[in-house]
Amino acid sequence: MSEKVFKYEKLAQSGKARRGRIHTAHGTIETPVFMPVGTAATVKAIKPEDVKDAGSDIILANTYHLFLRPGHELIERRGGLHKFMNWEGPILTDSGGYQVFSLSHMRKMTEDGVTFRSHIDGSKQHLNAEISTQIQHSLDATITMAFDECTPYPATERQARKSMELSMRWAKRSRDAYKHRDGYAQFGIVQGGVYPELRKESIEKLKELDFEGYAIGGVSVGEPEDKLCGIAEYCTDHMPEDKPRYLMGVGYPSDLINSVSYGVDMFDCVLPTRNARNGSAFVSTGVIRVKNEKYAEDDTPLDENCDCYTCTNYTKAYLRHLFKAGESFGGMLLTIHNIHFYQQLMATLRQAIEDDNFEEVSQELLSRVR
Amino acid sequence: MSEKVFKYEKLAQSGKARRGRIHTAHGTIETPVFMPVGTAATVKAIKPEDVKDAGSDIILANTYHLFLRPGHELIERRGGLHKFMNWEGPILTDSGGYQVFSLSHMRKMTEDGVTFRSHIDGSKQHLNAEISTQIQHSLDATITMAFDECTPYPATERQARKSMELSMRWAKRSRDAYKHRDGYAQFGIVQGGVYPELRKESIEKLKELDFEGYAIGGVSVGEPEDKLCGIAEYCTDHMPEDKPRYLMGVGYPSDLINSVSYGVDMFDCVLPTRNARNGSAFVSTGVIRVKNEKYAEDDTPLDENCDCYTCTNYTKAYLRHLFKAGESFGGMLLTIHNIHFYQQLMATLRQAIEDDNFEEVSQELLSRVR
Repeated sequence: MSEKVFKYEKLAQSGKARRGRIHTAHGTIETPVFMPVGTAATVKAIKPEDVKDAGSDIILANTYHLFLRPGHELIERRGGLHKFMNWEGPILTDSGGYQVFSLSHMRKMTEDGVTFRSHIDGSKQHLNAEISTQIQHSLDATITMAFDECTPYPATERQARKSMELSMRWAKRSRDAYKHRDGYAQFGIVQGGVYPELRKESIEKLKELDFEGYAIGGVSVGEPEDKLCGIAEYCTDHMPEDKPRYLMGVGYPSDLINSVSYGVDMFDCVLPTRNARNGSAFVSTGVIRVKNEKYAEDDTPLDENCDCYTCTNYTKAYLRHLFKAGESFGGMLLTIHNIHFYQQLMATLRQAIEDDNFEEVSQELLSRVR
Repeated sequence: MSEKVFKYEKLAQSGKARRGRIHTAHGTIETPVFMPVGTAATVKAIKPEDVKDAGSDIILANTYHLFLRPGHELIERRGGLHKFMNWEGPILTDSGGYQVFSLSHMRKMTEDGVTFRSHIDGSKQHLNAEISTQIQHSLDATITMAFDECTPYPATERQARKSMELSMRWAKRSRDAYKHRDGYAQFGIVQGGVYPELRKESIEKLKELDFEGYAIGGVSVGEPEDKLCGIAEYCTDHMPEDKPRYLMGVGYPSDLINSVSYGVDMFDCVLPTRNARNGSAFVSTGVIRVKNEKYAEDDTPLDENCDCYTCTNYTKAYLRHLFKAGESFGGMLLTIHNIHFYQQLMATLRQAIEDDNFEEVSQELLSRVR
């Protein structure tokens, strides 16, 4: 198979959990996969080599941020995002819709799109399906996301339907605006809030547009965990078998394990990187807040079972000192560890699916991790 | 020669410039040497491996900072600073005197030492020759500095004499408090302000104490550059031939080149690391402020002649973006470059001395660098 054809290949299954491989123009992605977030053309605080060495096949970058600064056209003139930020592997860009709703000021929604003021300089900006798709093209995103409205939680069924239907009209316009290239892909985003019938309707509409992959959007927006799981499981049951399934913006290790069990293939989340910079480390027994007084003289690594750079070379006592002293090296070391932890978790899940003992492995993991 | 004997070995000379090697318990140091500053048990923003890969043989750590946080006894219980911070090579610690005078509040000087309030939590603290020497012992410093008062500039000859004589009494007490260990060293610090006779007297007093090395203190405290050069040249002319000579807290590349020409062997300065975090890069043609608008679409590296990690992989356009976006990765990349630049400069000077064409090489360098 040519490396240049974008294709999802299912290698194994255990229950509903899928072990696969996505072939792209920028390399292959082993799934289930976790994508570290590199918002502004950098996975904050670490080198791309550290991201790769932790076992990352693909990263996510934010269209909203790069559109506002330094500008997608500037990045296009640099030869695209891969070259600009020194990351050769696949890159997925979101559509910018979510960030417009969570970060910008003075939003005004119309049928066309959304007008807003930049959170950086207050300048007036406009995003719609065509512009978002063009921005992602300029960035040379391996995987482009359709422009959508993230339905807030809570929302009535009427509100959720209105929002979903708008997103579906935007999905059609995004698909029309997308320029097909070998090894590249565009994913549609399922909306519909917490209403199964709306989700199903959304999936049907997206399937008609024949995207290269499908994402579950509008989750992890404040709904209770059981609702999140319910939506993820319902959606995956109705999504195509032969395309990647991506659960957007999720989440904790336990969310990832549960979602893989429903058949989700792809994840992104700021948790491992953002929490790292705040001094929280994900470990095989839960979460460690390294600033805690009890680690002041603790000469053990964050996680005895971890072979990452941080755990190989530094103690909790040292990491605590760095955070107490406000040294950015602390955030770097925890970021390296947390990404490694997430990628090791995904590797464990992939192996369990190959070995067809996913249920057993996932239950054991869920009894320990957060 | 045993690696465990602390010894300065002169390998070559060109004019007054010396090419040497210092043998220590933690490895050898090629001189003239630049020591990156690792104030709080980290060379800010980068990994120890990056420090080493840039060509650094030895780093400096600050006694004042580590005394206050996390505390030298805590570090001693961790097995010393090398193990704590994952740096196996030699470490030089300052005496804490300079920082007490530049950072702390409510200082009160007596014959014994100095009482002050911590800049971190306002707690009342006391440092003197014995305590400073003990702290550096607890840290397991390869090179311990004698406790001194940094004579301010300007100072009358009378003030400078009084200050120098106090520092010499403290030097004697520091020497008495120092515990000799194979491969370790203690350096005395020459004071005397801008007054040659006082400097000479200081050197004579220190030589009586037979330190393993000698430092020129009280420079780079606001005096004009010609005074700095004058002091450095005068002192080196009177310092022992068979011991390392260390010019404290200096400086710009041009200061280093000039001082090496007088026979100085060792340097430390926060400039390459601090300026990096502020967006200033030292390059073979001077200094680059990467935030400058003119680099927005500049696809060239910081320095075409540099083979550091940063220059190999990133453009000025990308670095400018990182600084404009407030991304700490920008500070990391400039720190890696600036330390590499300083170490390459030192390597060039060492080679020039070996080739006995130091005058020619240094003049060419001085015509370009800052």
